[in-house]
Amino acid sequence: MSSFDHTEIDDVIHGRLRLGIMAYLSTASPAPFTELKQKVNATDGNLSTHLSKLEAARYVRIEKKFANKKPRTSVHLTETGRKAWIAYLRRLEDMIAETKS
Amino acid sequence: MSSFDHTEIDDVIHGRLRLGIMAYLSTASPAPFTELKQKVNATDGNLSTHLSKLEAARYVRIEKKFANKKPRTSVHLTETGRKAWIAYLRRLEDMIAETKS
Repeated sequence: MSSFDHTEIDDVIHGRLRLGIMAYLSTASPAPFTELKQKVNATDGNLSTHLSKLEAARYVRIEKKFANKKPRTSVHLTETGRKAWIAYLRRLEDMIAETKS
Repeated sequence: MSSFDHTEIDDVIHGRLRLGIMAYLSTASPAPFTELKQKVNATDGNLSTHLSKLEAARYVRIEKKFANKKPRTSVHLTETGRKAWIAYLRRLEDMIAETKS
């Protein structure tokens, strides 16, 4: 296996918006939907679509609650998600390290 | 601007296969088409498609020559490509650094 083999990169995480989501959640989970949206610079629809994809992979968990009668959505990084994030970073770091040696 | 803003990531480089190509070329330009194909684990058609996209952005230059009457294609990283690669890496490293602080 070559360090440059593109099929070794986790495609669920790699999409630009999902990468931003995973990176942010790795520092700030759980995050309110509205905060996440602003950090990754997404629209509501766009963020929802990509969260669904991450949820399907069980990398995130979406929680809907009511606070003062208002719905609040928060996004949690799961343990599976954290492991996938670490593996993804390692893979990327290996490839980048190779380009610097 | 947030470090997690997905629109700040160069989409031309970010696609998994193109990322593999750029990473490999940053260490070994010019590279023969056949060598590149093996390193990034792509088919002929797939590699050609993504090289065209990188060529359109002027990140790579494709050279076709004949050696012993056989056609040989080699792929060169351009100066523009090298700068874009460095900028891309910086952007990614900033985002990752933020997740570790």
